[in-house]
Amino acid sequence: MKNKQVTVKGFRAAAVYCGIKKSSDKKDLALIYSEVPAVASAVFTQNKVKAAPVILSGKNLLKGAISTIVANSGNANACTGGQGMKDALLMAEKAAFFTASGKKEIVVCSTGVIGVPLPMENILDGIETASYMLREDGLSGAAEAIMTTDTFKKTSFVEFKINGKKCSLMGMAKGSGMIHPNMATMLCFVLTDISISKKLLDKAFKEINKETFSTITVDGDTSTNDTAVILANGMAGNKPVTREGRDYKLFHKKLKLVMLELAKAIVKDGEGASKFIEIRIKNSVTKEAAVKIGKAVACSSLFKTAVYGGDPNWGRILSAIGNSGVQFKENKVDIFIGRLPIVKSGIEAEFNWKKAHALLMRKEVLITINLHSGKKSASVYTCDLTEGYIRINAHYRT
Amino acid sequence: MKNKQVTVKGFRAAAVYCGIKKSSDKKDLALIYSEVPAVASAVFTQNKVKAAPVILSGKNLLKGAISTIVANSGNANACTGGQGMKDALLMAEKAAFFTASGKKEIVVCSTGVIGVPLPMENILDGIETASYMLREDGLSGAAEAIMTTDTFKKTSFVEFKINGKKCSLMGMAKGSGMIHPNMATMLCFVLTDISISKKLLDKAFKEINKETFSTITVDGDTSTNDTAVILANGMAGNKPVTREGRDYKLFHKKLKLVMLELAKAIVKDGEGASKFIEIRIKNSVTKEAAVKIGKAVACSSLFKTAVYGGDPNWGRILSAIGNSGVQFKENKVDIFIGRLPIVKSGIEAEFNWKKAHALLMRKEVLITINLHSGKKSASVYTCDLTEGYIRINAHYRT
Repeated sequence: MKNKQVTVKGFRAAAVYCGIKKSSDKKDLALIYSEVPAVASAVFTQNKVKAAPVILSGKNLLKGAISTIVANSGNANACTGGQGMKDALLMAEKAAFFTASGKKEIVVCSTGVIGVPLPMENILDGIETASYMLREDGLSGAAEAIMTTDTFKKTSFVEFKINGKKCSLMGMAKGSGMIHPNMATMLCFVLTDISISKKLLDKAFKEINKETFSTITVDGDTSTNDTAVILANGMAGNKPVTREGRDYKLFHKKLKLVMLELAKAIVKDGEGASKFIEIRIKNSVTKEAAVKIGKAVACSSLFKTAVYGGDPNWGRILSAIGNSGVQFKENKVDIFIGRLPIVKSGIEAEFNWKKAHALLMRKEVLITINLHSGKKSASVYTCDLTEGYIRINAHYRT
Repeated sequence: MKNKQVTVKGFRAAAVYCGIKKSSDKKDLALIYSEVPAVASAVFTQNKVKAAPVILSGKNLLKGAISTIVANSGNANACTGGQGMKDALLMAEKAAFFTASGKKEIVVCSTGVIGVPLPMENILDGIETASYMLREDGLSGAAEAIMTTDTFKKTSFVEFKINGKKCSLMGMAKGSGMIHPNMATMLCFVLTDISISKKLLDKAFKEINKETFSTITVDGDTSTNDTAVILANGMAGNKPVTREGRDYKLFHKKLKLVMLELAKAIVKDGEGASKFIEIRIKNSVTKEAAVKIGKAVACSSLFKTAVYGGDPNWGRILSAIGNSGVQFKENKVDIFIGRLPIVKSGIEAEFNWKKAHALLMRKEVLITINLHSGKKSASVYTCDLTEGYIRINAHYRT
């Protein structure tokens, strides 16, 4: 994707360095603005400790349309008590003032270190400066400004037509550690100019979230700030999508493409990760059980280190399935690395160790678990666990 | 504790190298025998994938008294299908034959790699050889023979008197990785010559297990082979303990000492661990909620790496509490490192960073979380997460 050219009709964005992060080479504040208030939907963290901006944005999204997203990186404004809520409100107020939006039409997001009060003077200056810099081709810069330990920018873009009108859909996300989204992810903003009803936007976004951001894990830690938001401003001029017909299905398909690409990008950039791992569960009784099993495997440190070392230690996979809390028949389980069978009916299949090792040493690893007990499937995405993860997190602030 | 001299009346043990482990410097088979059948109690893994010896031992323990424990390391006999159960039965049969015990009076335990059939010829030879070597002072050798990635032998010993009779209580345990016991631990054998009813032995063992082995975690992975067994052969000659009076209380107290020492030793020897961490939860509404919160913190890779790096990153602690599933009031929580307050009422207490860092760089770290919401307390024990864990597990078999 060539980021420079990406635009979505009616959206403008800007990113600045306002002094939250240590290095001024990095941007740390983003402003995203829609010329007309957009229909919006969102999902937030299920962690019982919620950051102030999560609480505020949740309230504003209940009120109605959204015009502006203001997001900072380098500080999560979480566990900051009453001061934290005052600061989040002030961010919203200033963003509304400088973009001439309604006071409740604002989504506020913060990401970074927990427990430290926001440097509000810097942030308010940053919002003002960014508001003068809003540009149609500023979306890519905004994606940069929300990064923390991320090593690359995560964006996705598609175009499609609905009754002859070109519609655009652009997503950006950040996230690398503390990734175990529980119905939401670290930060994800999806912008589209499609005209669609609030009800259908909600339905599509929440459904797709379950199969994308809610199926990834890096380290099993659900963050205090997870937020995924979609804004649809209707400026493509298509006949509004208000029924679950062909147009809705097309939108649903394209939105899933974008969200899956972003979800996978977060896992690929998992802290210290050397490999991307897909765990595909087949023939489960329910989809929920499949996800539960996939997550149990994806969260096992022993499994993740075995993949890192290229060790086809399938016992760790079967043991993790046994810890998932899901009922299953051990003697029916088949397990594959790529297309190579390593477990047949719960015991070791005769396999070529070198071949299995070679498959595990690739950059992308596929583990398939066939439960032979139902008809549902699901995939869970994760990365391996390496010394790099330890290094990054032992000294995050020191 | 001087291991050489440790004996428990009526118990004999032996340990041999029979060729399961690669290096013949290490012992890999232990036999523990009681002259008279012992009253027994046990707890096993809650993993739905249970190793053959776990299933067999569970059955035998239901039948009645136990005379002999046969245990091998280097191979878990888990995920080995029908052959695995045949092998476990054969181990029990041979152990019964060579110790002249009843066929059902046997506990069989295996620990080590999953999914590989046992080398039965070696094991049967080993059982025979060991049976000729049974000695009263052989308990310490048995503790050695059950080690896998353990770096030190884990034993504990106490003596006490019940109505004038000297009673002894000796425990041995192994475990270093795949440690997240769910009502049991990897392997733990407790031997005592006290005379006690089956009912009270059960009660004490299961109660204490909840506060010792069930409160430790190394890596969040519950094993397929967790087994903790206690044998009481009554040879101390005390008046049998059949009521919950003073004698029972004394036994309970001593048993807890032994089991807590073993549980802590497992955590101290956690794979790659550089520090022992106690997480003490105070003023919780229930003890269960306290343990749940403690485990959520103890299982957080971000918390464990922060302790490794000496980073007083309390936001990770509060975030982990938020993920525990327990209801609590964020603005009531106080957190301490040692006796140093770092969080007061849910937000950062003004603390000396260098002092906090120094406390975290000690070999033993105490984190206290005061919920201010009830009257119950509990401790959970874990270790830090280091590059060493990754190294050990990335290449366990390669």
